Amino acid sequence: MTPRIPVAVLASTGSVGQRFVQLLDRHPWFEVVALTGSERLAGQPYGQACKWVLPEAMPGWAAEMILQPSEPGLVGAARLAFSALPSEQAYSIEPLFARAGLAVCSNASAFRQAADVPLLLPEVNPEHIRLVDRQRRERGWSGCIITNPNCTSTGLTVALKALEDAFGLRRVFAVSLQALSGAGYPGVASLDVIDNVIPWINGEEEKVELEPRKMLGRLEDGQVVLAEALFSAHTNRVAVSDGHLVCASVELAQPTSPVEAEQVLSAYTAPPASRDLPSAPRPPILVRSEPDRPQPRHDRMTGKGMTTVVGRVRPDPLFHLKFAVLSHNTIRGAAGGSIYNAELLVKEGLLV
Amino acid sequence: MTPRIPVAVLASTGSVGQRFVQLLDRHPWFEVVALTGSERLAGQPYGQACKWVLPEAMPGWAAEMILQPSEPGLVGAARLAFSALPSEQAYSIEPLFARAGLAVCSNASAFRQAADVPLLLPEVNPEHIRLVDRQRRERGWSGCIITNPNCTSTGLTVALKALEDAFGLRRVFAVSLQALSGAGYPGVASLDVIDNVIPWINGEEEKVELEPRKMLGRLEDGQVVLAEALFSAHTNRVAVSDGHLVCASVELAQPTSPVEAEQVLSAYTAPPASRDLPSAPRPPILVRSEPDRPQPRHDRMTGKGMTTVVGRVRPDPLFHLKFAVLSHNTIRGAAGGSIYNAELLVKEGLLV
Amino acid sequence: MTPRIPVAVLASTGSVGQRFVQLLDRHPWFEVVALTGSERLAGQPYGQACKWVLPEAMPGWAAEMILQPSEPGLVGAARLAFSALPSEQAYSIEPLFARAGLAVCSNASAFRQAADVPLLLPEVNPEHIRLVDRQRRERGWSGCIITNPNCTSTGLTVALKALEDAFGLRRVFAVSLQALSGAGYPGVASLDVIDNVIPWINGEEEKVELEPRKMLGRLEDGQVVLAEALFSAHTNRVAVSDGHLVCASVELAQPTSPVEAEQVLSAYTAPPASRDLPSAPRPPILVRSEPDRPQPRHDRMTGKGMTTVVGRVRPDPLFHLKFAVLSHNTIRGAAGGSIYNAELLVKEGLLV
Amino acid sequence: MTPRIPVAVLASTGSVGQRFVQLLDRHPWFEVVALTGSERLAGQPYGQACKWVLPEAMPGWAAEMILQPSEPGLVGAARLAFSALPSEQAYSIEPLFARAGLAVCSNASAFRQAADVPLLLPEVNPEHIRLVDRQRRERGWSGCIITNPNCTSTGLTVALKALEDAFGLRRVFAVSLQALSGAGYPGVASLDVIDNVIPWINGEEEKVELEPRKMLGRLEDGQVVLAEALFSAHTNRVAVSDGHLVCASVELAQPTSPVEAEQVLSAYTAPPASRDLPSAPRPPILVRSEPDRPQPRHDRMTGKGMTTVVGRVRPDPLFHLKFAVLSHNTIRGAAGGSIYNAELLVKEGLLV
Repeated sequence: MTPRIPVAVLASTGSVGQRFVQLLDRHPWFEVVALTGSERLAGQPYGQACKWVLPEAMPGWAAEMILQPSEPGLVGAARLAFSALPSEQAYSIEPLFARAGLAVCSNASAFRQAADVPLLLPEVNPEHIRLVDRQRRERGWSGCIITNPNCTSTGLTVALKALEDAFGLRRVFAVSLQALSGAGYPGVASLDVIDNVIPWINGEEEKVELEPRKMLGRLEDGQVVLAEALFSAHTNRVAVSDGHLVCASVELAQPTSPVEAEQVLSAYTAPPASRDLPSAPRPPILVRSEPDRPQPRHDRMTGKGMTTVVGRVRPDPLFHLKFAVLSHNTIRGAAGGSIYNAELLVKEGLLV
Repeated sequence: MTPRIPVAVLASTGSVGQRFVQLLDRHPWFEVVALTGSERLAGQPYGQACKWVLPEAMPGWAAEMILQPSEPGLVGAARLAFSALPSEQAYSIEPLFARAGLAVCSNASAFRQAADVPLLLPEVNPEHIRLVDRQRRERGWSGCIITNPNCTSTGLTVALKALEDAFGLRRVFAVSLQALSGAGYPGVASLDVIDNVIPWINGEEEKVELEPRKMLGRLEDGQVVLAEALFSAHTNRVAVSDGHLVCASVELAQPTSPVEAEQVLSAYTAPPASRDLPSAPRPPILVRSEPDRPQPRHDRMTGKGMTTVVGRVRPDPLFHLKFAVLSHNTIRGAAGGSIYNAELLVKEGLLV
Repeated sequence: MTPRIPVAVLASTGSVGQRFVQLLDRHPWFEVVALTGSERLAGQPYGQACKWVLPEAMPGWAAEMILQPSEPGLVGAARLAFSALPSEQAYSIEPLFARAGLAVCSNASAFRQAADVPLLLPEVNPEHIRLVDRQRRERGWSGCIITNPNCTSTGLTVALKALEDAFGLRRVFAVSLQALSGAGYPGVASLDVIDNVIPWINGEEEKVELEPRKMLGRLEDGQVVLAEALFSAHTNRVAVSDGHLVCASVELAQPTSPVEAEQVLSAYTAPPASRDLPSAPRPPILVRSEPDRPQPRHDRMTGKGMTTVVGRVRPDPLFHLKFAVLSHNTIRGAAGGSIYNAELLVKEGLLV
Repeated sequence: MTPRIPVAVLASTGSVGQRFVQLLDRHPWFEVVALTGSERLAGQPYGQACKWVLPEAMPGWAAEMILQPSEPGLVGAARLAFSALPSEQAYSIEPLFARAGLAVCSNASAFRQAADVPLLLPEVNPEHIRLVDRQRRERGWSGCIITNPNCTSTGLTVALKALEDAFGLRRVFAVSLQALSGAGYPGVASLDVIDNVIPWINGEEEKVELEPRKMLGRLEDGQVVLAEALFSAHTNRVAVSDGHLVCASVELAQPTSPVEAEQVLSAYTAPPASRDLPSAPRPPILVRSEPDRPQPRHDRMTGKGMTTVVGRVRPDPLFHLKFAVLSHNTIRGAAGGSIYNAELLVKEGLLV
């Protein structure tokens, strides 16, 4: 049996950090050797420093690990770092780790739009990972930074990829109903969401209008050419713990029927490079036929929280199709997505 | 002081029926003389027959009124009937009242699309009330039926009317986040909405795609010509007690800026016929400038629940404008709307 | 490998019925051969007849089983019937099954207080199962009826049993904060619990004041002598999906310290008869040391939903101890409890 | 018309501070001339500095007032200061105002248990206000500090006072289900209360076990002799915006029936000194007869949020009576209570 790869989780005490810890528990390839957190909390056992907000219990090994500051010299033998850093910190800290030779698999938005940084959904655009070659060459890093998209773009982009491949994609309207955990912890105040909806999430619409275009884009000469499809997004916060729902209307290059679209979505398979990785969603897309699904509470854990669930595929009076798409925002849309990216990196032989 | 007009409330024990009772308490023009309900409950005092679900207390006069079956001969001197009947019952019962000489101001969808029945928002299309002349002529009724739109179309249509007048309207995407009270009582099961969203409301999307087109249409030769604007709707149920929020993207005939659109929305006034009626919203439209408004809990009671609240007016990457619009679904979108319609009917001299 | 015992689930489409189906999926001893439901739904496949409300998916075998009416002749080879019947139906239907030779493991309250019917929590009073002998003798049944307590009494009684054994129990104040699923589906209307609490559950307080006394009572000469401890209960419904929380204050015969009480609770083991059954909670009681636990969302699934979770053990200014106790109401408190009872019945050789 | 008394609100931007601003809008006796807040926010208009969390709109005059630091020299002509300061700040800041000659009507817990500081509910113990004489004499202040109890003790104590007067009070069990606004803003994280209950509120149980005893105590020789009744409290946080519900069981000196207790509660009137003040609750106590009331959403605004609502009065198997009591925590239990106290102070001629 091969020894597992030592990894660190940066900013491990927040809600995404906790998902990393949970999903890396007994991971077949990775073994957590370091957990980092803010200066203020460093030095304490993780079990004490961290207000655990997940319904399932904290793994025992994590509870006893001493929290470190987020510095490359303090993560022991880790060769790979999962980052749940806030974006403003990610800008300065992630490059330190990459320069020190670690592969940073980041959930932060800081480098998502950098020309030499892959923005990855392995079941959508695994080939973009080759941007790492350019990144290392140009930045002189032995490590690297690879990123996953914002949680609202995630499920939407997986569904759109299947449609794009089959029918071509022109325009997309997307309105989200997003879960509380997407705002971290403590995040949204309870008085703001009880008997209420907040029709705004800072910076989110811009991300949903841009990130899918990079992921659906072609890699040409070490450069990602944005997909031509255009997006319009409205983003809302609702009183749901986990699971982002997106209502989408799409205009296709080649019209199709809801039935055919459902077949295409159901039949979608990840490219060979990412299909059999440990975290690969099984299936990548599940199409539900009930009139009132997907629903966050019922469908978010489909495929261990990694599957994109689509439902209500129907004709759109203005464009071609309407549908609803659900994705678990802190699993597929955050920690699980970064881990899936890391698996791809390892499989492609890019972990130095 | 003129004596008030005697009125009845049909199906008065449900959640919309209760709003009628509440809003007609001390109404300057109308006096409730009869409350009707199901056969099963008839004969009991309203205070006993009705499980009151509004936070404010039931008016004392209502509590003591004996509930009647929904029959024209049993509503005493009532000349006007407010109907909160379910649509399937409204089909058969409302015509009985109209034939018996009562003006039926209905919240049901049964007759909204009939060619000779006005679908009214007094601040939008008061002139459509003249369909009553044709209705009486063709059906031989001395009474009549007038209707208000479904609660989700209401606020949206008010906002669109202002934009249509100023810039012309071509296409509208509308995604709703709708309140629980829209489903009546007991309505939505608590287990269905706790930590959840339901991305479907039976029959609702069809209404939102059609009703605004009738209300924005022109009355020509006793006929409503549907507005040419086309609509696409997604409707969702969320854990909010009252207040429907709609995220809208609109394509205009003549592009404009968000600032100019806000000015047009803020400056919108109802036509003279409906401007000064007792239930006229003051103002018809309120534009909020905060980035995160309107919100149901904070804004639904604007203008006593009759004002349409718009916010987040911003450019749309695919069409021209994006915005959010909020309307109180059981006040402006149901009981309050029917009462406003009744006031218009009286003012236009159409109450026989 | 021994063939599994064929069983039926009566009233399988409700929220407790669904838990039976879920928990019996791959049960080592039992195999579901029949699912029953109302006349109206009978004849349809379960997957169609049943609005599944659990977050996890319905087992495939259940989806395809044809729903039967609740009659002894229509449950095939079933030797044991799990009953989720409403109490008023249980009164008449359960005896039909018992007379027909089936062991009825009932979640209904109908027979809980009958002198010859065991009211069982296997980790508390497994010896009470011998009432079945008397029941069969007196009623002439080849089958039998055994019952589990109401969901609010369940966790409370487990905790009290540990304290009773060690210190003697005199008086108990118990105030519950109960989950929505305890009221079945559709159950509580969403408008009744959004931004609200309902300080009343019909008939519940009487059960909480009586049922623990029977379970903590001694079996003497085929008769249960009620425990002398007296109870006062207040029961409330709160906006929680699953997990009943009870705040308890207890007066003991022999005072103790919170630390010692915690030790006794933690060390509690089920009697040998029930200790190693497949559904035996592991551990029976978990004591949490955080100041703010147990919490329904975090602790209800402890021990697969079968463990009683106790926390906040502290001195009581009037009695001796205060604590909070949490139990999963549809697992330990309903379906899981009935299954645990059935396992005890089989182990004791009482299944004919 | 007498000019109104100029007042300040200290810590006016929090959730209790906002209630002060709202309730003082158009108050017949008081006029707000200064609003204070943290150093960080001082200098901004209140409308900008304050994230308003109440459903109703902020008064216009408040929006334009410039926020001041909480210093006696910066509140203009204010003769009275309403304090919503956190307790740790109240310790040091409130005495500065009292020394500077202002009457501080405080919602903080800092001085509630000081021997020379009145802890007041005007409908319960208005005579305790004479402690101000001793306070001024001993501390050499020209101003003073008077306090209102914690929000959970408030409604409970009002109900208990009526029972104490009629029957004598020995022991009280009290279990609270408390609203989110009691924790301020942002206060409780939404992820902590969605589908959940928190069975702990820091320091709250101690207050509920002590404060009612001071308020129900007798003033003798400038000293409050604690009432002999003993209390046991469990406090819980639930997903309710406003309105604390308390389940109480009481042991009386002289047993009574629920019917008689209801009569006594309904007939309770405030002492003459406080009966006709502008904020006096009308009625002080409302007894509801429905089996499932009081409920926070339906009953919290009874008597403009100042009335204590009692329901479910019934026999208690251990003590004598059980009942549920509801009080609006940020109106009667906080800002409204402080204002009522201030009115008493003015009426008693104690405002210098």
